[in-house]
Amino acid sequence: MPDLKTVVAEIAAEMKERPDRGEVAKYIPELARVDPNAFGIAVIDAEGKVFTGGDADTPFSIQSVSKVFTLTLALGKVGDRLWRRVGKEPSGSPFNSIVQLEREQGVPRNPFINAGALAVTDVILSGHQPREALGEILRFMQFLADDVSISIDHGIAGSEQRWGFRNAALANYMRSFGNLENPVDFTLGVYFHHCAIAMSCIQLATAGRFLAHGGRNPTTGHSVVSLDRARRINALMLTCGHYDGSGEFAYRVGLPGKSGVGGGILAIVPDKASIAVWAPGLDAAGNSHLGRIALEILTRRMGWSIFGA
Amino acid sequence: MPDLKTVVAEIAAEMKERPDRGEVAKYIPELARVDPNAFGIAVIDAEGKVFTGGDADTPFSIQSVSKVFTLTLALGKVGDRLWRRVGKEPSGSPFNSIVQLEREQGVPRNPFINAGALAVTDVILSGHQPREALGEILRFMQFLADDVSISIDHGIAGSEQRWGFRNAALANYMRSFGNLENPVDFTLGVYFHHCAIAMSCIQLATAGRFLAHGGRNPTTGHSVVSLDRARRINALMLTCGHYDGSGEFAYRVGLPGKSGVGGGILAIVPDKASIAVWAPGLDAAGNSHLGRIALEILTRRMGWSIFGA
Amino acid sequence: MPDLKTVVAEIAAEMKERPDRGEVAKYIPELARVDPNAFGIAVIDAEGKVFTGGDADTPFSIQSVSKVFTLTLALGKVGDRLWRRVGKEPSGSPFNSIVQLEREQGVPRNPFINAGALAVTDVILSGHQPREALGEILRFMQFLADDVSISIDHGIAGSEQRWGFRNAALANYMRSFGNLENPVDFTLGVYFHHCAIAMSCIQLATAGRFLAHGGRNPTTGHSVVSLDRARRINALMLTCGHYDGSGEFAYRVGLPGKSGVGGGILAIVPDKASIAVWAPGLDAAGNSHLGRIALEILTRRMGWSIFGA
Amino acid sequence: MPDLKTVVAEIAAEMKERPDRGEVAKYIPELARVDPNAFGIAVIDAEGKVFTGGDADTPFSIQSVSKVFTLTLALGKVGDRLWRRVGKEPSGSPFNSIVQLEREQGVPRNPFINAGALAVTDVILSGHQPREALGEILRFMQFLADDVSISIDHGIAGSEQRWGFRNAALANYMRSFGNLENPVDFTLGVYFHHCAIAMSCIQLATAGRFLAHGGRNPTTGHSVVSLDRARRINALMLTCGHYDGSGEFAYRVGLPGKSGVGGGILAIVPDKASIAVWAPGLDAAGNSHLGRIALEILTRRMGWSIFGA
Repeated sequence: MPDLKTVVAEIAAEMKERPDRGEVAKYIPELARVDPNAFGIAVIDAEGKVFTGGDADTPFSIQSVSKVFTLTLALGKVGDRLWRRVGKEPSGSPFNSIVQLEREQGVPRNPFINAGALAVTDVILSGHQPREALGEILRFMQFLADDVSISIDHGIAGSEQRWGFRNAALANYMRSFGNLENPVDFTLGVYFHHCAIAMSCIQLATAGRFLAHGGRNPTTGHSVVSLDRARRINALMLTCGHYDGSGEFAYRVGLPGKSGVGGGILAIVPDKASIAVWAPGLDAAGNSHLGRIALEILTRRMGWSIFGA
Repeated sequence: MPDLKTVVAEIAAEMKERPDRGEVAKYIPELARVDPNAFGIAVIDAEGKVFTGGDADTPFSIQSVSKVFTLTLALGKVGDRLWRRVGKEPSGSPFNSIVQLEREQGVPRNPFINAGALAVTDVILSGHQPREALGEILRFMQFLADDVSISIDHGIAGSEQRWGFRNAALANYMRSFGNLENPVDFTLGVYFHHCAIAMSCIQLATAGRFLAHGGRNPTTGHSVVSLDRARRINALMLTCGHYDGSGEFAYRVGLPGKSGVGGGILAIVPDKASIAVWAPGLDAAGNSHLGRIALEILTRRMGWSIFGA
Repeated sequence: MPDLKTVVAEIAAEMKERPDRGEVAKYIPELARVDPNAFGIAVIDAEGKVFTGGDADTPFSIQSVSKVFTLTLALGKVGDRLWRRVGKEPSGSPFNSIVQLEREQGVPRNPFINAGALAVTDVILSGHQPREALGEILRFMQFLADDVSISIDHGIAGSEQRWGFRNAALANYMRSFGNLENPVDFTLGVYFHHCAIAMSCIQLATAGRFLAHGGRNPTTGHSVVSLDRARRINALMLTCGHYDGSGEFAYRVGLPGKSGVGGGILAIVPDKASIAVWAPGLDAAGNSHLGRIALEILTRRMGWSIFGA
Repeated sequence: MPDLKTVVAEIAAEMKERPDRGEVAKYIPELARVDPNAFGIAVIDAEGKVFTGGDADTPFSIQSVSKVFTLTLALGKVGDRLWRRVGKEPSGSPFNSIVQLEREQGVPRNPFINAGALAVTDVILSGHQPREALGEILRFMQFLADDVSISIDHGIAGSEQRWGFRNAALANYMRSFGNLENPVDFTLGVYFHHCAIAMSCIQLATAGRFLAHGGRNPTTGHSVVSLDRARRINALMLTCGHYDGSGEFAYRVGLPGKSGVGGGILAIVPDKASIAVWAPGLDAAGNSHLGRIALEILTRRMGWSIFGA
């Protein structure tokens, strides 16, 4: 068994050097100006030991990685009734496709495409003011990461809101089918803000630990969800966590993972580790290019694929 | 840890009794007349011990489960060049959808939907007579199952061919984009015949063992594929093995698996076991209803989910 | 040649009696409460003689019939440059479909589906305040109908705006492709208000006369568009004026026509007459059920089909 | 009123010179080798006077123009029951799209897209041998054109059959929904052969005369269909006769017309004339480039648009 500390350090060094870095998201200026040379990685093992490389404590915009946590929150609130509002199947379409919504009457295919995450946000918002719902989400992230310093980048949230026409289309469209219950602007507002949460790799890997360990953070002892639910969230991450690149990610990396357009990926090694990587350049499917490569190397060297050691 | 023998026996007994049995496929008479009360299960552990329940040695039509093995064969022939002809992503559509093919210029989304399996069959057929290609596939199955008695049900193959208009449409459509190279009837003929291979649960679980053990049957010592390839085939089974019910299967069962319209499912527990179940009644997505439930119970009781123990 | 006055009177009497009246639009309360037994018809011949039947001077919500006039206005402003923003082909989809927009990058298929009419409205709005643009549209209608009493039903406009999630989705979606230039709410606001213009059959038939007579109202002598443009607007009405029922309308009625969800239809008999009918009940495609039947009888009795006398 | 003879001669001269000639269809060698400089036009007025220009008596492959005549035949056989098998709406898709068929359960949108024409052919074939059905279609063409020398180009038919994978896909696909009743190869065979009928502009314009004159050839006095049916066939030609360029054709030319990939177009001026043009180069939508332009000039000069004189 190779030494995890060495492997993580090697990967960080290697990734810093690679010339192929993908394309940084440019749809809002705040993301466009992120340094394409950034790379961070944090791995936390079952004992709670933290192994880091590169820019592991630089906060970045977690964007869609937040959808794992809002899904967890919403399941906590309404349980399996959530699945009346959103499906569990890969979409076979880009993250912001609206075609599937027309065919399936406003029910998004899964909670990780934008439309699905909007439905999940709407569930969390239900009966509350946007500020309250957002506060709840942020406190949940702080609790999971055991770090009250985590905050929202309001510049990014505002910019998303100003330019988020595609998401506004999805939200209005679902609303027309009755699959949003709150005012469209409220749901969109909470959505844009939870996507704009800023976290470092270390914070993100910490927040994901409950998924690696049967629903419970083994260090703090905090129980977040049942074993069964943790497994199921992992399953959804594997089949749907990388949009229309989910099959490729499973094929190459072999771990449940969720990516964000900010270049972050949270990946789970069941019973072994929680991993966060960050590299801002994206591939054609909108997932972190070097983040995926780093995870591929890591799983291979450590024998961590869930599909066979 | 519960006793595997007991768990398998309990599941078989329980499944025999259940009133909800799904709907037996009716599109050809040979499948329509299969006994809906049949149920079989075979589990083979890492040591090669075989645990069975119900009709575990009754042969049934493996249908699309054969696609796991033709994929393995085709990868052996052309390696990663196969991925020029077929994708690796879940389709987000029913198994026989043609819409995606139009959008993506004749390249099927993955090797497990019908269109993708036709492309894989075409690769195996390349430069050979249908009879030769079919012989190769059958001998490969006999080799994997270590049983030369395995054969093709020609009644079923003929019936499929007579009524296989949808598959003929898919094949002609791909041919129009140049993504089939052999005469359409040849490719269709080999496809219909390899889907008509008849195997028992015991034979099928045996044939799948290399996927559970790094590409190698630990009992015979036969190496079939590399560890890396075994992992990747498992990943494809997980994301795409149950058509538009793949997300649900991953969510509930948590194992790589491939279903067939004959009611069979092959499921892999990496490093631990190869499993075949058979229950002819299907659910709405065309996957074995009780087969999936049996696997869900089995994984839960044994703690075998790849998403956390 | 039958006597037009008699034919119009007979049709009005017959339509008042028919039990099959379609379904009144129910998506907003203001439309839902319209009397399903209403029926009006007005035919104005080349000499300017007006033939009426039923509720020909009751104002109703013209809804999408307004799109003929906004198209005329927008063509007057930007000429053929309009066709960079919207196509000229039938959509093969329901009036509010968003699927086509995704496939064709935010360019609506024609100016008469909702998305296309939003793009047309955006052109009219360009560089103005919503109030100004709306004033211009209203004055244009008053000028065409030669009647300054025509007004907007603000109750309907407000209700549309409150419940217009589908149109908001379309507008935001086009905006995401850069095919709306004004603030989404401005364009939507003008759109909802011009759809809420209330007119009687007599007013509407008067307003449409320029289309029947080479671009010019032969009574007032006002020239509205060139002969060529009048022909082309008629062509668009024929191929696209009844959404996904345009083929059926051309097949049965054989005249250029534009329907609205308020139950109105404007139909043009080139060189002969301008016709407006109103019957609030709709058919499955969202077009006036009895309106279409009345026009079918009228054209047949008068030999007015453009497809042969 | 300009002199028709002069106008036709001018158009022919002008078209012979134009450098923009579109792209000759290349999908089979027999069509690819047609001279791109060919241009023919024939106009037959109500009195039966024939005006020609260019290569008006050179036979060319009428291809999809044949669909007007097979539609006429099929309506004669089964009347309005035909509309259970095929729709009357523009498709909003390319001529050979299969997507719409999946969405609408094997019922093609109209009789002029390939799928629809296959359904129409299947109706004509019903209960006969392919040879008999084809003989009937050919004799119908000879009768309409009053010319027994019209024949099928078997070289083209054979080539179409060898390379017609897309049509084979459509046919098999419809068969899977039960919307073809004959053996797929029979229907395809008759279809490919009737598309391979060779006719000159003069023959084609003669064959179309019944559509211009209320269902009856005014010279021979032969009644082919009722006035009502003639109108309706014209309406279908207008809304659907140029595939996904039907709106553009109606907008520019303003006549019912049907194009073929061989470069021919039949256009009808109700009550006035039957027109055939031929120019082998096609535009992006697969319709004759110069054929459409010639018709646009002709209608404008003669004031023949059905949308206003």
